[in-house]
Amino acid sequence: MAALTNTVRAFLTNGVTDLLHQGEIKRRDLRENDVSIKIHYCGICHSDMHMAHNEWGMTQYPLVPGHEIAGVVDAVGSKVTKFKVGDRVGVGCLVDSCKKCDHCTHEIEHVCREMPTWTYGMPDKISPGNVTFGGYSERIVVDDGFVLHIPDGLDLADAAPLLCAGITSWTPLVQAKVGPTSKVGVVGIGGLGHLAVKLARALGASVTAFTSKASKRDELIALGANDVVVTSDAADLKRVTGTLDLIVDTVSADHDIMSLIDALVFEGTYHIVGAPSTPLKLGTFPLIMKQVRITGSGIGSIQSTQEMLDLCAEKKVAPIIEIGALKDVNHLFERLEKGDVRFRFVLDIKGHFE
Amino acid sequence: MAALTNTVRAFLTNGVTDLLHQGEIKRRDLRENDVSIKIHYCGICHSDMHMAHNEWGMTQYPLVPGHEIAGVVDAVGSKVTKFKVGDRVGVGCLVDSCKKCDHCTHEIEHVCREMPTWTYGMPDKISPGNVTFGGYSERIVVDDGFVLHIPDGLDLADAAPLLCAGITSWTPLVQAKVGPTSKVGVVGIGGLGHLAVKLARALGASVTAFTSKASKRDELIALGANDVVVTSDAADLKRVTGTLDLIVDTVSADHDIMSLIDALVFEGTYHIVGAPSTPLKLGTFPLIMKQVRITGSGIGSIQSTQEMLDLCAEKKVAPIIEIGALKDVNHLFERLEKGDVRFRFVLDIKGHFE
Repeated sequence: MAALTNTVRAFLTNGVTDLLHQGEIKRRDLRENDVSIKIHYCGICHSDMHMAHNEWGMTQYPLVPGHEIAGVVDAVGSKVTKFKVGDRVGVGCLVDSCKKCDHCTHEIEHVCREMPTWTYGMPDKISPGNVTFGGYSERIVVDDGFVLHIPDGLDLADAAPLLCAGITSWTPLVQAKVGPTSKVGVVGIGGLGHLAVKLARALGASVTAFTSKASKRDELIALGANDVVVTSDAADLKRVTGTLDLIVDTVSADHDIMSLIDALVFEGTYHIVGAPSTPLKLGTFPLIMKQVRITGSGIGSIQSTQEMLDLCAEKKVAPIIEIGALKDVNHLFERLEKGDVRFRFVLDIKGHFE
Repeated sequence: MAALTNTVRAFLTNGVTDLLHQGEIKRRDLRENDVSIKIHYCGICHSDMHMAHNEWGMTQYPLVPGHEIAGVVDAVGSKVTKFKVGDRVGVGCLVDSCKKCDHCTHEIEHVCREMPTWTYGMPDKISPGNVTFGGYSERIVVDDGFVLHIPDGLDLADAAPLLCAGITSWTPLVQAKVGPTSKVGVVGIGGLGHLAVKLARALGASVTAFTSKASKRDELIALGANDVVVTSDAADLKRVTGTLDLIVDTVSADHDIMSLIDALVFEGTYHIVGAPSTPLKLGTFPLIMKQVRITGSGIGSIQSTQEMLDLCAEKKVAPIIEIGALKDVNHLFERLEKGDVRFRFVLDIKGHFE
């Protein structure tokens, strides 16, 4: 057990009706394999809002959200070899796992059989009795196995959303072995979807963006989509019947997936990363006749996240972000709730605490 | 184009309100690659009933149903080498395909890009202007590429249901590479499901049968199931959470798949072969958190069907059937509609026409 003797300033909430406000938390003393990170930026994920409002019924207060963390190493434990002071690094959704199960030993620790320790709001095995605190804070201490290198050429603010939205969009592409001959559809072009478009393009795929609004066509082409289909236009949907190898669906509201599944080729894959609160309607006909498969995933492994970050640096892929002040986070939550964001908010953490 | 000069007796229906009754149809003259088969048995598939009643809105009358055909070769065309007079043979759901598309040339002609010619009720490319007639008839003429050998040791009447129900149950097992270490669940133990249980056992898998009725437990164990789960019993369902690699779902009525999906291991497969008329409800949580995949299939290729027949002969796998007289077919349809069949009806065709 590591003692918690370091006082760190953070934005926290004490209950469902509370707003995020500045307070203090304790971080643990550096263990020999720990990395201490001065946080520069933290992306705002929808989960942050859901957890702050206890919408999933599992929130322990006080809560410090934030799992799209980018910063600079300011101290390392005695046995840390992969990182040194001054390194540009990131932390995503998880900060620990059991390290013993078959998934952890096969480097897919993000699906640890005992569940990973999520970056915030989760009982912390390393400091029992405490919960983890996220990136809306000036500093974080993380086991070096869960820290990512942010390569040269990738801006720290840009890197932040890649650590959750990015890896979540990346995993479907990796699982489907997307490459230069692939034809990929993306449904729901928000924080995740706009990165799915960019990442699939970076892998050489041809990308079709699906949108409910014809007015977004130009924006989606500018984003890199090779084609845009307006889902409210039956003729436009019909035009792409049987053409796509993979569709990545990022939509978290109820929606009709059957008309989209029609766009898949024989044995195509419909990959779901969104979690609507009501069940989707699944007709079995295309499963039987076209042998399409429906798959899903959450985030991705640490190793896969590093590969994505490296590709983003190499191919100059960056999310489209709006940088906001930490003190404005409650207002940004309100805008996020209304969908008023193109495409991801990133909080300027360093600027606030300096 | 092959001339249709052979008059053959058959049971046919002339419309939705008509009953099946004896009449005459024309079969084509033997082409050089054709096999003429004297039909001994024909299984009754649910499709026969749906098509007779035009429930799918595509029936052309007169209709002669039947695509689970087992019989004996009574003539072969001049270039037929794989079959000779006297051979015991079968015909399943398809009698022709384009033979040119990438699927046909890769021996998955059952998913021909131009759609296979189904065994009955389908425009016949070989004799344009005519439709195909099925197995409720004394004789059938079929391209030799679509005829199966029924191996020694497999009874003709037992072989009949294998040609549709059997291959439909077999394909999910092949696609999931089921073997001795596999744990397979089967949902819906009817014509298809009881064969899925037997075929999975023949491949060495451990099989869990899911049933809504506790009273069926002994029957399912007798069938070969290693375990039985009563789906109306939440504790029984919970007992198998996270234990099965594959679930084959044969149910064609609306049902809750989410409680069944919970029985899958991480990255397990839920394979659907039933086609409920209303969409199933799909929550995305297990796709995202457990990376389960949902797949489906119809029948299987000719080659795969032959492999299944050979395994059935080798491992002594046979469906449980009730043999009925062809003249009673309308009554058997009524019983089928009520679910009063354990597990498949097979019509004695030869007995009727002799």
